[in-house]
Amino acid sequence: MGAAAKPPLPFSADRPIAPARTMEGLVRPGLRDLLALATRPEVLSFSIGLPAGDLLPCEVIAEAAAELLGEGPRPVQYGLPSSELKARIVELMALRGVVCTPEEVLLTTGAQQGTDLLARVLIEPGSTALVEEVVYDGVQMVLWPLKPKVVALPTDPGTGLDLDALERSLTRAERPSFLYVVPEGHNPLGVSLSLPARIRLVEIAARFGVPVIEDDAYGHLTYDAPPAPALASLDRRRVIYLGSFSKVLAPGLRVGWIVAPRELMPTLAALKHASDIDTTSLGQRIVERVLERGDFQDHLARLRKEYARRRDAMVSSLIRSMPAGVRWWRPTAGFFIWAELPPGFDSAELLKRAVETEQVAFSPGRVFAVGDCRRGRSGMRLCFAPQSPERIHEGIARLSRVIARELEPMAEPALSAG
Amino acid sequence: MGAAAKPPLPFSADRPIAPARTMEGLVRPGLRDLLALATRPEVLSFSIGLPAGDLLPCEVIAEAAAELLGEGPRPVQYGLPSSELKARIVELMALRGVVCTPEEVLLTTGAQQGTDLLARVLIEPGSTALVEEVVYDGVQMVLWPLKPKVVALPTDPGTGLDLDALERSLTRAERPSFLYVVPEGHNPLGVSLSLPARIRLVEIAARFGVPVIEDDAYGHLTYDAPPAPALASLDRRRVIYLGSFSKVLAPGLRVGWIVAPRELMPTLAALKHASDIDTTSLGQRIVERVLERGDFQDHLARLRKEYARRRDAMVSSLIRSMPAGVRWWRPTAGFFIWAELPPGFDSAELLKRAVETEQVAFSPGRVFAVGDCRRGRSGMRLCFAPQSPERIHEGIARLSRVIARELEPMAEPALSAG
Repeated sequence: MGAAAKPPLPFSADRPIAPARTMEGLVRPGLRDLLALATRPEVLSFSIGLPAGDLLPCEVIAEAAAELLGEGPRPVQYGLPSSELKARIVELMALRGVVCTPEEVLLTTGAQQGTDLLARVLIEPGSTALVEEVVYDGVQMVLWPLKPKVVALPTDPGTGLDLDALERSLTRAERPSFLYVVPEGHNPLGVSLSLPARIRLVEIAARFGVPVIEDDAYGHLTYDAPPAPALASLDRRRVIYLGSFSKVLAPGLRVGWIVAPRELMPTLAALKHASDIDTTSLGQRIVERVLERGDFQDHLARLRKEYARRRDAMVSSLIRSMPAGVRWWRPTAGFFIWAELPPGFDSAELLKRAVETEQVAFSPGRVFAVGDCRRGRSGMRLCFAPQSPERIHEGIARLSRVIARELEPMAEPALSAG
Repeated sequence: MGAAAKPPLPFSADRPIAPARTMEGLVRPGLRDLLALATRPEVLSFSIGLPAGDLLPCEVIAEAAAELLGEGPRPVQYGLPSSELKARIVELMALRGVVCTPEEVLLTTGAQQGTDLLARVLIEPGSTALVEEVVYDGVQMVLWPLKPKVVALPTDPGTGLDLDALERSLTRAERPSFLYVVPEGHNPLGVSLSLPARIRLVEIAARFGVPVIEDDAYGHLTYDAPPAPALASLDRRRVIYLGSFSKVLAPGLRVGWIVAPRELMPTLAALKHASDIDTTSLGQRIVERVLERGDFQDHLARLRKEYARRRDAMVSSLIRSMPAGVRWWRPTAGFFIWAELPPGFDSAELLKRAVETEQVAFSPGRVFAVGDCRRGRSGMRLCFAPQSPERIHEGIARLSRVIARELEPMAEPALSAG
C-alpha cells in the first residue's frame, strides 16, 4: 500500500473549494436580482409573501415570552419536542377536518423545513416528482439538489391543478415519489380547489398509490366561506400535511409541522434531528402558550377579516384601474392575486420598468415557473397581505399606469395615463 | 400516447408510503433505545451533551426579549439575516484568531444545520468524506442519506486525529469532499489538538487540496490555558468554520454560524433558504442584543470557571473511585471525558446494568463509532457539563461500583464495593 503506483497528488491542491455539481443551478442570479429590485426600501412592493407586520400579535407573544423565561431555563435549553404543542396542533387539525394523534405530528422549523424533510425522505434517486407548472419557488429549491425528474402539470388560476392531466400523467408514467399541491390559497395562483376536485384528487392518488404532500400554510385564511376540508381529512394514509404558524401567528418564530402516517415518523424525526436537532424551544413554547390562552380562533377571525379587506381593496383597484387585456383572478383564501399580461408581454421586463418609473413591484411569473411556460412569462403574483388598503390602491394605480404605457401600441389612446 | 401499451397501474396502489431506500439505516433503533435508557428522569445522567441549565443566562435573555418585542414586529417577522449579529460574530471570531468579514458569515439554525448544509453543498455523489473513527453522532446522521464513502481515520483521546494516517489516506486515495474535525474539546473524546498538530493538519489539507470542516462549538470553553487558535485562523481558504451559541449562550435559541470562503456563500445561502428560509428572527435578535451588552466575555469567563470546576470534580472522582483497568483522559476544553473499559468489556452492556442497578448513565462508545471499532465497543462518553460537582461525585461513585462488579472476576476482591 505504501508504494502505490498512483501519483501522490491526483488532484489540484490549488483548486478553491467548489460546491458539488449537484448544486449547479441552485443559485439563480437573474431571479435574485429581480427580487432585489422588488425589495428596495423605497419601493411599494406586492412581491414577497409576508404576513402583515401590524397583524402580528407582538404583545401576546411578548407576554408569553416573559412568562416562560421567568419560569426557568426550559424554553432556552435543548428538549424533546413539546407534547403540549402537539396536542394543540391536533386541535387545529380538527378545524381542517383532520383526525390525528400527537404521535403523528412532527414539529418543524417552519413549513419550509417540512417540505425539505419530506422531499428528502420520499424521493428515490432518479424518480419523479409531480408539481404544477407554476409552483411556490421554495419547493423548486428543495427539489433542485435532489435531482428528481420534475413533471410540471398544467394548472389554472380559476380552477387549480388540471386533474385530467394528472390522471393521464399517472397512467403513462412510473409511480412518482409524490405530488405536491397547495389546495387552499395556492401560492402563487391564489386559487383554492373545490370540494369535488379535492375528492377526485384524493381518489386518483389512492388509485395510483401516489403520496400527496398538501401544503396548507393558508388553510386557516379563507375569506368568503368556511374552507373546504383539507385533503388530509379525505385520506390520511396517502396525504401528508404541512402546516405553519408563519402566516397565522408569526414567521420569525419558525414553527411549523407535518402530519404524516405513523410509519414515516421515525425516519422524519431522524432526518429532522440531523438537520437542526430541535425546532427552537423558545419558539415552540411561545406558540404553545399563545394557543393555550384560548382566544386563537378569535385571532384567526381577525386575520380573516383584515386580509379579506386587503384582498377586496386590491380587487376593486384592479377593476378600477387595470387596462383591458390584463386578466386576474379573485382568490378566496391566502395572500395572493395572480394576474397575466396579454400574450407576448413579459412580466419580468415589466417589473424592471415598474420599479424604475413608478417604484412599485410584484413577483414575476418566472420565479414560479417550472421551465419556460406561458404563465411564467406573462404572470404576476401580487401579494396583498402586508399592505394597507390605501397603499394597495396607490400601488395598483401605479402598476396600472406602467402596464398601460407598455400596452399603449395595442391599446386605445385613452388608456394611457402617463 | 393515449393507447399506451404499458399497464395502467404499474405499481401497487396499496403499498403504504415508504421512505426512500437512501434513508434505510438512518434510524438506529438500538441506539435510540440505549439513549432512551439514559434519559429516564430518575437516572443520574452523564449521557447527553447539554449545557448546564443553571448557567443559561435566562434573565439576560428575558430582558433582551422584552426589549425587542416592545419595539415592533421585526423580531417575529421574516427578514434578512441580521447584519448586526454578523458583525458581532466577526468580533467573536477574532477571539479565535480568525479574520473574516460579515459577508463571509452565514447564520444557521445551530451548528447542526451548518454541518448539514456543508455536507450537502460539498459532497459529490460517490465521493469520500473523512472523519475520525469515533465522531459526533450528528455528523454520521448528516452523512447517512448523502451516501459518501465514509473513511474513518484512527484517533486518540490523548492526542487527537492521527495525522500520519490522514496523510497516508490522502496519498493513496482520491480527493475527499472534506475532512470533518473538532480540534477543541472533541466530541466525544474531549481531546484538543496541539498547535503543532493544527499547523500540520492545515499544511496537509493545503497540500492535498482538501476542504476541512472545523466544528468549534466548544472553542470558547477552554479551562487551563488560552485555547490554541482555530484551524480557520491558519488557513481561511481551506478551512470552513462552524460556530454555535448553543454551548456558550443557549441551545433553545437555535443560532449558529458558518464562516466560509466567499465563493461558497451564494450556494450555502440558497440551500439554507431551501432548508428553512430564515434562522429564527427572534433567536437572532436576542443573541444580537445579548452580545451588544458588552459583558459577553465576562459571561464566557464565568462559564469557563464553572465548567472547569465540574471537569475537576469528575476527574477527582474518577481518580478516587474508578477501578484499575479503566482508562480516562483529562480534557482541557469542552463538555466531555472519554473513558475506556478494559479489552473485552462492552460499554453498551455496562450501560444497561448501570441504569438498572445504580440509575446512572453515560453515552456508550458505539453511538459515536464509525463501523465496529475497539473504542466504540469499550468507550464511554461522560458529559460533566449539566451536573453539579456533588452530583458528579455521586454519579461517578455509582458508575465505579457497577464497573467494579463487572470487572470482579479479573480484579482484586477489595475493589468490589457492591
